[in-house]
Amino acid sequence: MEDLTKQTPLQQIVSCTIGNGTKIYNFVNLYHCRIGDDCVIGSFVEVQKNVNIGNHVKISSHSFLCEGVIVEDNVFIGHHVVFTNDKYPRATSKRGVLKTETDWPLLKTVVKNGASIGSNATILPGIIIGENAMVGAGAVVTKNVPSGSVVVGNPAKVISKKM
Amino acid sequence: MEDLTKQTPLQQIVSCTIGNGTKIYNFVNLYHCRIGDDCVIGSFVEVQKNVNIGNHVKISSHSFLCEGVIVEDNVFIGHHVVFTNDKYPRATSKRGVLKTETDWPLLKTVVKNGASIGSNATILPGIIIGENAMVGAGAVVTKNVPSGSVVVGNPAKVISKKM
Amino acid sequence: MEDLTKQTPLQQIVSCTIGNGTKIYNFVNLYHCRIGDDCVIGSFVEVQKNVNIGNHVKISSHSFLCEGVIVEDNVFIGHHVVFTNDKYPRATSKRGVLKTETDWPLLKTVVKNGASIGSNATILPGIIIGENAMVGAGAVVTKNVPSGSVVVGNPAKVISKKM
Repeated sequence: MEDLTKQTPLQQIVSCTIGNGTKIYNFVNLYHCRIGDDCVIGSFVEVQKNVNIGNHVKISSHSFLCEGVIVEDNVFIGHHVVFTNDKYPRATSKRGVLKTETDWPLLKTVVKNGASIGSNATILPGIIIGENAMVGAGAVVTKNVPSGSVVVGNPAKVISKKM
Repeated sequence: MEDLTKQTPLQQIVSCTIGNGTKIYNFVNLYHCRIGDDCVIGSFVEVQKNVNIGNHVKISSHSFLCEGVIVEDNVFIGHHVVFTNDKYPRATSKRGVLKTETDWPLLKTVVKNGASIGSNATILPGIIIGENAMVGAGAVVTKNVPSGSVVVGNPAKVISKKM
Repeated sequence: MEDLTKQTPLQQIVSCTIGNGTKIYNFVNLYHCRIGDDCVIGSFVEVQKNVNIGNHVKISSHSFLCEGVIVEDNVFIGHHVVFTNDKYPRATSKRGVLKTETDWPLLKTVVKNGASIGSNATILPGIIIGENAMVGAGAVVTKNVPSGSVVVGNPAKVISKKM
């Protein structure tokens, strides 16, 4: 475990805590987050501040993890997966100035131990994805996903209760 | 307002006009476009030539704005949002050579004042997204979105007429 | 045709075979793949090892091509297109250690001559996309796409049999 700031043209890593054995590919933008041991972080990934990622987690290329996301151990996150934390995003406040992060209620999302999220899935804010659950590629997840279930579609629906 | 060309390993900005107070993150590819005042442009964003972006606009990470897109003021564009400008794209012309930009009719898309587009939304070409409208995360927008309405799904349908 | 390794801050190209007249934009991550003549590879594209891309192919920005993908000639791949090769991805094996590439059956996907894949489409593993077929933007393709047909939606369904 080390506290890492490494700003090169290929890796922008600012004030992150990175576990042992974790491999980070090129063209990444990681800041003020915590990543556990033996993880893999693909290219073109952005992880925002206060995100907490467990051990043995794969985050595949082009994925985006926003503030408010907690990823437990042994989780697979496919390519182009997008998390969100604001249910009704707007650019500007009612006073007409650009919103800052204090201007909206930040909703938390938790991806539980052993879950898998397929590529290009979109996760609405405030969701719990249960243990060993599987989110199909391209799914838009609008409510909690029960442990061990498989969900697919837009909006995502359960197609199998136990894997 | 300044005319900016800045080609560093972290930012490829070529012949853009950039407004005052606008913040541009790393790993961006912007060329021959116009961006207004007090905007935020996230990482891994590409904006093509002739795109016109107003003031107080947020363009979040990984989004792609193609030629033909006009974004008015106070607009929120989430992460991984994709615009399009060609209804029936093909790699090659009937003569079998790679198409150039003069080989297809470029359709325009307008995002009106105060609208919000959720993360991972896909916007088909030739669309008008009305004032203060909200496009849900993961939606695929195939026709115009009325002002103030909320649309979700694939294809996107109106679920609320007035926010 | 040349064997190319070129690791700059803007282009990570490792042990690729690149055809004549092919243009590669900045911020790309290409490794151990083969790309034919007169292709265009957009920014933020990742192409994994053993991918085989024909001639006159356009791969637009932010797309991801994984191992197991074969792209024939004259194919258009839009922006943010995501291929997959593992039907039931997991981060760790049953022994609890991070999976390696030998731990899952890699499924092949073929995009046949002249086909077009719209932006933000997701292609499930083991699919054949037929000659001159067109996959609509935002579609999630879960089964083979007949030659010349147009498919849209999630899951993608045929809306036109012959273009």
